[in-house]
Amino acid sequence: MSDHLFEYLCRMGDNTLVLGHRVSEWCGHAPVLEEDIALANTALDLIGQTTLWLDLAGEVEGAGRNADKLAFHRDVWDFRNLLLVEQPNGDFGQTMMRQFLFDAWHLGQLKALMDSSNAQVAAIAEKSSKEVTYHLERARDTVIGLGDGTEESHARMQAALNKLWPYVGEMFVSDDVDAALVAGGIAPDPASLRPAYDALVSDVFLAATLKKPQDDFAHKGGKSGKRHSEHLGHILTQMQWLQRAYPDATW
Amino acid sequence: MSDHLFEYLCRMGDNTLVLGHRVSEWCGHAPVLEEDIALANTALDLIGQTTLWLDLAGEVEGAGRNADKLAFHRDVWDFRNLLLVEQPNGDFGQTMMRQFLFDAWHLGQLKALMDSSNAQVAAIAEKSSKEVTYHLERARDTVIGLGDGTEESHARMQAALNKLWPYVGEMFVSDDVDAALVAGGIAPDPASLRPAYDALVSDVFLAATLKKPQDDFAHKGGKSGKRHSEHLGHILTQMQWLQRAYPDATW
Repeated sequence: MSDHLFEYLCRMGDNTLVLGHRVSEWCGHAPVLEEDIALANTALDLIGQTTLWLDLAGEVEGAGRNADKLAFHRDVWDFRNLLLVEQPNGDFGQTMMRQFLFDAWHLGQLKALMDSSNAQVAAIAEKSSKEVTYHLERARDTVIGLGDGTEESHARMQAALNKLWPYVGEMFVSDDVDAALVAGGIAPDPASLRPAYDALVSDVFLAATLKKPQDDFAHKGGKSGKRHSEHLGHILTQMQWLQRAYPDATW
Repeated sequence: MSDHLFEYLCRMGDNTLVLGHRVSEWCGHAPVLEEDIALANTALDLIGQTTLWLDLAGEVEGAGRNADKLAFHRDVWDFRNLLLVEQPNGDFGQTMMRQFLFDAWHLGQLKALMDSSNAQVAAIAEKSSKEVTYHLERARDTVIGLGDGTEESHARMQAALNKLWPYVGEMFVSDDVDAALVAGGIAPDPASLRPAYDALVSDVFLAATLKKPQDDFAHKGGKSGKRHSEHLGHILTQMQWLQRAYPDATW
């Protein structure tokens, strides 16, 4: 069980780590100051959550690795994040669409984890869910505002949705790790989160005048670690550089 | 003297290393196959020259570092390349303008170094000059072809020249290192290369219908190592990643 739990905690922590890094790339570059600060705050929340998940993963593993070791000293093939979160930022609309598609899943996931039989998991989920409630609210409002905005902003949001929708399906796929955690009462069955997710995003797309793509083809391989997109390697060259060049550096 | 010679050899090797890395970024992305192969060949020539210069630098230093150690285990502040070569590729025209501005200096520099009192320096310069003769010929032809081409290609080449010209002056600045090498008969006075350089580039700009910028303001700090542009750090995160993540890895 501890192997499966370690794997599961890496999935949670790698999602927030990689998305947090991606969102932090906007710092100083967002279209208006308020959005810049909001993006930076979101990134910081996600990195903070990463510390909790990956420290717990290290504790469960029992091999002396903490969140820093796991974040900065693993290579691509050991990362377990969803493919969605490693996709490039694109324009501001694409970044916010990615955030919305992730947050809508993330909040449902965290709410289910608040009922976990594992008290530490439940506590991290509860703490995180407060931040993610705000992330989802903001991402939803932005998707609606830009989707139902000008002709230009509408076209960009539709393009972003078309581009990112093939990365949604992976969130709801189950494997042995999920099965073991479901059996232990630690985590929800991924598929059980889909109806509420579909209802939520459909409502938002309606308000945003966006069309959900008909094709439900889903890229897979991120959470299992079998096949990441090439983008993850490029993220790691930047994200891990300091700890690679100066191992065990401290402030 | 050996400190100054080490410094000088790093300048030569870092120029070819950083430009070689920059040019290699085009591999698989150039506008037509022939240019793609030409760019890749240029990059390989430059990396090959880097090995010669930095291996000799390591030998002169006498501290057990070879070209690999110097290339992959130094940080930004220890790099001694001209600011010109670390500038981003931009479009194909900007890449070729950067190449031309560098090659025109590089070939003059190598020809002068063929008369060096240091036999190893003279030998590397002679070997390199054969490759660089071809680099310069190709870069010059491309600058003329695109400068005196369509309205669009002309405008892009003029924009590239305007952007990169402020990085030319640094090639001809002297400091203590240069003075020591001039005194030892090892290397030419940088300023002595300027008249031939100016004559060459003026001829090419005339044929290319491009206007040389009037302002001779020059960014400095690359070859002295005092102030690199932010681009160098980003190059190093990619270039050094493998050797940082897997120190002493071999094929």
